[in-house]
Amino acid sequence: MEIVVGIDIGGTNTEIGLVDINGNILEFDKFETQKFKNEVEYIETLSQKVKSLVFNKYKIIGLGVGAPNANFFTGKIENAPNINWARKVIPFTEMLSDIFKVDVKITNDANAAAIGEMLYGNAIGVKDFILITLGTGLGSGFVCNGELILGHDGFAGEMGHITAVYGGRLCGCGKQGCLETYVSATGIRTTVLEMLRYSKKESLLRKYEAKDITSKSIYEAAVLGDILAHDVFDFTAKILGEKLADIVALTSPKAIYFFGGLSAAGDYLLVPTKKYMEQNLMPIFKNKVKLEVSALMGKNAAVLGAAALIWKEIK
Amino acid sequence: MEIVVGIDIGGTNTEIGLVDINGNILEFDKFETQKFKNEVEYIETLSQKVKSLVFNKYKIIGLGVGAPNANFFTGKIENAPNINWARKVIPFTEMLSDIFKVDVKITNDANAAAIGEMLYGNAIGVKDFILITLGTGLGSGFVCNGELILGHDGFAGEMGHITAVYGGRLCGCGKQGCLETYVSATGIRTTVLEMLRYSKKESLLRKYEAKDITSKSIYEAAVLGDILAHDVFDFTAKILGEKLADIVALTSPKAIYFFGGLSAAGDYLLVPTKKYMEQNLMPIFKNKVKLEVSALMGKNAAVLGAAALIWKEIK
Repeated sequence: MEIVVGIDIGGTNTEIGLVDINGNILEFDKFETQKFKNEVEYIETLSQKVKSLVFNKYKIIGLGVGAPNANFFTGKIENAPNINWARKVIPFTEMLSDIFKVDVKITNDANAAAIGEMLYGNAIGVKDFILITLGTGLGSGFVCNGELILGHDGFAGEMGHITAVYGGRLCGCGKQGCLETYVSATGIRTTVLEMLRYSKKESLLRKYEAKDITSKSIYEAAVLGDILAHDVFDFTAKILGEKLADIVALTSPKAIYFFGGLSAAGDYLLVPTKKYMEQNLMPIFKNKVKLEVSALMGKNAAVLGAAALIWKEIK
Repeated sequence: MEIVVGIDIGGTNTEIGLVDINGNILEFDKFETQKFKNEVEYIETLSQKVKSLVFNKYKIIGLGVGAPNANFFTGKIENAPNINWARKVIPFTEMLSDIFKVDVKITNDANAAAIGEMLYGNAIGVKDFILITLGTGLGSGFVCNGELILGHDGFAGEMGHITAVYGGRLCGCGKQGCLETYVSATGIRTTVLEMLRYSKKESLLRKYEAKDITSKSIYEAAVLGDILAHDVFDFTAKILGEKLADIVALTSPKAIYFFGGLSAAGDYLLVPTKKYMEQNLMPIFKNKVKLEVSALMGKNAAVLGAAALIWKEIK
């Protein structure tokens, strides 16, 4: 049986799935990403794991990889600061295709998730859409004319680093006021802490210690009618909605899908986001763009998306 | 000899050129756009002019049209407010192909200019770039992976209507603070009038009556060292540079080209624009993106771009 190996390289774990053409994960394994001295040792373990999953049962037609700082064009992982063996330029696809003698593709996790959404999620048949991942940061994959927008150097889609507030919060990238410093699990937590400090409103969130406030606790407070939690979502939604309006004017997508921890807030975030987006759209764009949670929430979207890099070419 | 008919429908004139594969305009004619009762009369005159240009000498392999509110996907002009016979939906390409029995393509003028730049200008061989037209408004054409970004409905590329200043200047589209209300021939003129009113600085521009201030007079004052004129370019460049930084993060183009009246200011606008853009870029994008005046300035870019819609398919 023909399968594609989907590999998701995260800061904590590396996950491997054997994925059939319909998006079923037939076999699965994982291991710790950072217990290796260098990329050679890492790739040795990775390929042993893949070989033992495949053993005598499946035919590999390609490997798809999602990884931080991965460049689709060059096939390299370029200075991924959060992975100990990847703080340099690694010709990752070349190393894997030397071993497996099949096509290997790599891209960052948001782009992989976008392709996964297109093949197995809500974006089936949609040629123009955006997938936004709201995790520790804000990642995005742009699909236009049915193709990923990669830019001349492979680094397009950095929506997390457009400026939302000039002179605003310091971002890990070195800039100030980047969208992801407000709209992400980390960003919304900062907003809660600021609001708790500067607002006099009662709030269920006051019972937590700062370190225990997460997007989940904010969501739960909102469900219970907590006004401050609603204010936090409204503040976040206003910033996100305004920026989405700009992005709609530029790329006119049919839909925008949300994935990742903060997306679990669902309508508490997306309803006000849509309201603010609509307020800032030109008339020709109004009431056309759908905001939706990804259909792959709860599934292993990163592995599916990585495998989809190869299946997309074949389909 | 095989030619493509390039047609540029402007608010004042309609220009027609017979364009060979190398971008030479072999024959040319024009007529007033708005002297017709309806689209049927307009198209009758247009096709007579085309036929007499072509007469017994050339073989038409297609017609390309640049027009306001033109939709590449549907081939229609959709409610162009500034053309008297086009304030409704007109199946323009269908009407022309019924007459000429060849392929007809249509798009808005900024998209046509982008394709023209790709075939005949500075963007030859460049697969990821943006063309920005700075005229009465701000238009833009986005090329990614060598293709125009049209969006799901054909209306992508409305960079003039991303919001530069929330609650800012009223725009013709009904929104406030759109980029084109600051960055365009009209926008920079408004900025001059505001600065002359609120600043106490001496300026050569004070000798003009308000109605006589144009992007040309501002440029000429800047050349003579006028501080206020430089302030005006700096103010305009800051807004443009900040927004370009966002757009680079999203699409990572290799170059951004400028066309139209205000672009004639050249370095007076582009040098500070680049400075502000660079200040707002993530490290991975710094010092990579070229800002350049279009190579088609002074040529009939609109006619060339319109013809390029067809030649692009053949090349």
